[in-house]
Amino acid sequence: MNIGIIGATGYGGVELYRILANHRYVENIHLYTSSAEKKSYIDEYPHLSHIKENELKPLEPDQIKEENDVVFLATPSGISASLTPELLDDQLKIIDLSGDLRLKNSDDYEKWYKKAPAPEMLLQEAVYGLTELYREDIKNAKILANPGCYPTATLLGLAPLVREKIVKENSIIVDAKSGVSGAGRNASLATSFVEIQDNFKIYKVHQHQHIPEIEQELHKWDEKVGFISFSTHLVPMTRGIMATMYIELLEEWNTSKLVDLYESFYKHSPFVRVRTNGTFPSTKEVYGSNYCDIGLAFDQRTSRLTVVSVIDNLMKGAAGQAVQNFNIMSGFQENEGLNFLPVYP
Amino acid sequence: MNIGIIGATGYGGVELYRILANHRYVENIHLYTSSAEKKSYIDEYPHLSHIKENELKPLEPDQIKEENDVVFLATPSGISASLTPELLDDQLKIIDLSGDLRLKNSDDYEKWYKKAPAPEMLLQEAVYGLTELYREDIKNAKILANPGCYPTATLLGLAPLVREKIVKENSIIVDAKSGVSGAGRNASLATSFVEIQDNFKIYKVHQHQHIPEIEQELHKWDEKVGFISFSTHLVPMTRGIMATMYIELLEEWNTSKLVDLYESFYKHSPFVRVRTNGTFPSTKEVYGSNYCDIGLAFDQRTSRLTVVSVIDNLMKGAAGQAVQNFNIMSGFQENEGLNFLPVYP
Amino acid sequence: MNIGIIGATGYGGVELYRILANHRYVENIHLYTSSAEKKSYIDEYPHLSHIKENELKPLEPDQIKEENDVVFLATPSGISASLTPELLDDQLKIIDLSGDLRLKNSDDYEKWYKKAPAPEMLLQEAVYGLTELYREDIKNAKILANPGCYPTATLLGLAPLVREKIVKENSIIVDAKSGVSGAGRNASLATSFVEIQDNFKIYKVHQHQHIPEIEQELHKWDEKVGFISFSTHLVPMTRGIMATMYIELLEEWNTSKLVDLYESFYKHSPFVRVRTNGTFPSTKEVYGSNYCDIGLAFDQRTSRLTVVSVIDNLMKGAAGQAVQNFNIMSGFQENEGLNFLPVYP
Amino acid sequence: MNIGIIGATGYGGVELYRILANHRYVENIHLYTSSAEKKSYIDEYPHLSHIKENELKPLEPDQIKEENDVVFLATPSGISASLTPELLDDQLKIIDLSGDLRLKNSDDYEKWYKKAPAPEMLLQEAVYGLTELYREDIKNAKILANPGCYPTATLLGLAPLVREKIVKENSIIVDAKSGVSGAGRNASLATSFVEIQDNFKIYKVHQHQHIPEIEQELHKWDEKVGFISFSTHLVPMTRGIMATMYIELLEEWNTSKLVDLYESFYKHSPFVRVRTNGTFPSTKEVYGSNYCDIGLAFDQRTSRLTVVSVIDNLMKGAAGQAVQNFNIMSGFQENEGLNFLPVYP
Repeated sequence: MNIGIIGATGYGGVELYRILANHRYVENIHLYTSSAEKKSYIDEYPHLSHIKENELKPLEPDQIKEENDVVFLATPSGISASLTPELLDDQLKIIDLSGDLRLKNSDDYEKWYKKAPAPEMLLQEAVYGLTELYREDIKNAKILANPGCYPTATLLGLAPLVREKIVKENSIIVDAKSGVSGAGRNASLATSFVEIQDNFKIYKVHQHQHIPEIEQELHKWDEKVGFISFSTHLVPMTRGIMATMYIELLEEWNTSKLVDLYESFYKHSPFVRVRTNGTFPSTKEVYGSNYCDIGLAFDQRTSRLTVVSVIDNLMKGAAGQAVQNFNIMSGFQENEGLNFLPVYP
Repeated sequence: MNIGIIGATGYGGVELYRILANHRYVENIHLYTSSAEKKSYIDEYPHLSHIKENELKPLEPDQIKEENDVVFLATPSGISASLTPELLDDQLKIIDLSGDLRLKNSDDYEKWYKKAPAPEMLLQEAVYGLTELYREDIKNAKILANPGCYPTATLLGLAPLVREKIVKENSIIVDAKSGVSGAGRNASLATSFVEIQDNFKIYKVHQHQHIPEIEQELHKWDEKVGFISFSTHLVPMTRGIMATMYIELLEEWNTSKLVDLYESFYKHSPFVRVRTNGTFPSTKEVYGSNYCDIGLAFDQRTSRLTVVSVIDNLMKGAAGQAVQNFNIMSGFQENEGLNFLPVYP
Repeated sequence: MNIGIIGATGYGGVELYRILANHRYVENIHLYTSSAEKKSYIDEYPHLSHIKENELKPLEPDQIKEENDVVFLATPSGISASLTPELLDDQLKIIDLSGDLRLKNSDDYEKWYKKAPAPEMLLQEAVYGLTELYREDIKNAKILANPGCYPTATLLGLAPLVREKIVKENSIIVDAKSGVSGAGRNASLATSFVEIQDNFKIYKVHQHQHIPEIEQELHKWDEKVGFISFSTHLVPMTRGIMATMYIELLEEWNTSKLVDLYESFYKHSPFVRVRTNGTFPSTKEVYGSNYCDIGLAFDQRTSRLTVVSVIDNLMKGAAGQAVQNFNIMSGFQENEGLNFLPVYP
Repeated sequence: MNIGIIGATGYGGVELYRILANHRYVENIHLYTSSAEKKSYIDEYPHLSHIKENELKPLEPDQIKEENDVVFLATPSGISASLTPELLDDQLKIIDLSGDLRLKNSDDYEKWYKKAPAPEMLLQEAVYGLTELYREDIKNAKILANPGCYPTATLLGLAPLVREKIVKENSIIVDAKSGVSGAGRNASLATSFVEIQDNFKIYKVHQHQHIPEIEQELHKWDEKVGFISFSTHLVPMTRGIMATMYIELLEEWNTSKLVDLYESFYKHSPFVRVRTNGTFPSTKEVYGSNYCDIGLAFDQRTSRLTVVSVIDNLMKGAAGQAVQNFNIMSGFQENEGLNFLPVYP
């Protein structure tokens, strides 16, 4: 197959390249960037010295459509909303890693992203690609909205509870932490080494644009789940997200029964690993891999459940899940080209 | 004054030394350690090359009593419970940085610390040294139980609310994060560089021994506050604690009124800095200093309040607060010898 | 093929597992450890949850010989010297990642390692596995001594010059820097997070045991090259080695001619990437991969050449090169199972 | 005294503030910045919340002259060359932390800095402020050129040898490593967290602008010392410089005699600490302090001397040494306001 990566010079783009370069069914990879001054992929990323694909091409929709069977958009929010309509074509499948096509309600997009939304038709056609929950829809998707990194960790950690409708209204609190690569590849004082190193920050308190995305899915599963409190923190590390979630349940449970519920829920999902032995995952345990690891414990003292979910934000939180969806859309095995073990240490 | 530091070779001990070596009213510092094989402070800590105090002395209670006016115990939990009774003396004031004398209920100590508690009499005499709340008691203390690092950050973040009795029962959730120096100075695989670097971990889920300490104080202030959910995470950084707290209030508030409440509550406390401009502190903003910085925001959408409190765990969370208490016990200015600005960057 | 990893719980062992688990020609992997108390691989390394091999077996030479076609020894120095003789067998090939079989002169081993050397016969039979230099010998090796991490980076950086015999006697200075995983997986204060983070150390000044290994090879290539000055530093990072080398040449050269020399020297070596554009590699550009990247510049001002060589110490510096040698010994393609791109960022 | 800090919003500026805010003889600190849009120091640096000086003033030479007794220029190179002439005044002493006034030969400045040099008169009047070597000149300085960070570490490490004239011509090699704060406070991809973390880089090979500064001083001390080879590396840490230096001596020495030479050379220098016990300093051992720590070992095997010198680049490498010079210029004790112990850990 011929594959295009739009936004190839960002961290999401280069992670897609890392996976697809060794994917058995990918023949050619075309690299596109809007940064006209960038000439060669190896100059941007010397760790790719000696690869065959090296040319960085401009964003010309007609050429992109002609050259590719599938394109991945690994672009900042706001680009896909305007670019995707120009790429629409019977032959081309589109996988969008940005937030532009995820919210069905375009008012929500405007409110939280403070940008113009994508055309309504596009929003309705795009399939939300939380793989473990929506495999059937994904099979036939032509336009796929790949989930955000925080929503992926959060939703996979909550799905077994919320689909079971055992969560008390308005009781979910998500305290999320992310490595810095989630902020993208750009020159900014706020993400400079000296400002981040040996430091721990909270940001976008009550204002993160992933809140409506998470609530949209939760409400599909159980309309009585209500609002979530959601906060985001920056950890001085490169990759990884941990969502620590506090939940009140409608009835008494214990840890062991809940682990069974999770195990059963994910038994056909090769990339979700539920801890059955009372341990909790740390972010490095999924580093560089497509896994989502989940641990949980019910606290009899407070009658509150703690669920911890970790992913690599560039993999299961972006490029990895995108390729997982690409596999399903293409009729391949779900884990084709994704069987990396985590890089540990 | 003649000052003793027991447990001088730990990180708490050496931080006490850093402060006291430049304290105007401290004449001599005596260094004690139970590690008999350690011979010289400079061999342990070459960053102290060229200091005058260098001898590491063994733990001999009689000699300690003779040589000092005040001793600081910067020892692991379990030591102080048995050592303090041997140090009791009319002339000697004792400041204990461990958890041994903090819990008034010795059953709680046994349950959470899984060690033998200190004698009852000692527990009743020890004054809990959360400086900003208990200045009057501290003035006359002979035995001071210096608060834990997590309790300091948490309690200073919650005190204005709980003292005002505006918190809904059982609604407090504390998601706490700490740098690695909080784990002490010792050889352990779990805190080795390679296991921590580029990693983020949760630990002691529902089981941290600081839970009863926090609840003991909260219940003093408002017996209706109920249980807290409390979790602890390890951040790949050396110093710093952030407590992110989620609270439901009994009535509607807004951020601005709450900021006023905090400002007013801490107006005579030089080391608590409340953010009045809607920003939130990061841990590095108090690095190496005795400050506790607090930011907060009420979320109208979920009717939940988020409070963020940061400290340097070795300073306000240990040695700094201990010297603050020492100053008050000795009749000095509260901030004597503690006027460091944070080291930033 | 049936493969054994002895010392599976160390960082070298688990990196071997990461590679071999996805190697096309490896059927079964058997995991051995001398730590009797360790029961399961997943308990040691939860990032491997859901793998099939999980049993940790004791070190019983007869069983090891029976179960495997090839064994990798990823053990600390001193183990292989005594264990390898017990494993000798017509059917079993041995790849030793420790330093025990590298030095042909057993006096050197005793002097630098301060341990008893391996039997002379073994030392003479072992083939030194610096792949790019000794492919022909490696093909027929039964016992392979896999090079040290520092020697690999250093020797690949120097080989084109020294084989060309253009280096001035006693002029080579190697200033080497390593990530902390090179120190192995163990509980030690010296490699604890708090002691390493935000710190840069020099260690083993003039005394590193890799000095005789480097000089042994250099002297094979040019007996007039003399002694090297070699120093080692610890960088607060997990993986990666950089050797910065300063060399005086016998005649005038320029950078461009030297780049040609290197390019030509490594033209059949898929894992050595010479920078032809005047840039220098950083360690992260080979992270998680088997590459050795080299940059160089001749300084007309001082008539001295600077060569920079980087590797991932756990890959090309240990497990990666070991599998590269395994491939050659087994008649596979040199890069079989090693085609990872570096993990960047 | 009334003190001005020009370039107050950079890392050098804020480190000056950290020191001077607690300096006994400093009454008022005025803060100047060329960034007109910046309004308040606390907005820039929230770790300074609750300080009294907060106004950021524009760079108006007349006002600066009127308001201050001494000004520190903590500006990027190129600013001081043009600004200093406007500040010249009988009453105002100027301490320039940039590289603009350090090179006596303005051709060198142009060649290495690629900028227009300062007026010749200024270059000739400026006193080079390597405190330990030039105390007498500094006493009477009106314009002081504060040394660069790398030159400070390097020159203090070499001075005892070169002043003794025992160094072989062209034999000095300096392999220098720096934390990232040395690159200043600005938004740049090259110093973003994700590009630096878990990475080790070499940069400006053979081209660093500190080379002529180092050679200028060395040649003053011994015109036969020749050229140095000098390379610079970026360490993933915030503060700290280590210079590892390789030197050939004109005659045989041993470590012990060399330690004596260094001890004797620095016996009146409170901020230089020579390791007498065969250990070597690490960068964290001077973190946040004004110390320069030196270790050394003569290698009989190669007849080469290794000297290691470490400083905190923002302290002894910038603001700390500037205040040390300010003290001498003002007739205070050399260590006034600089008696911090290193912050460790």
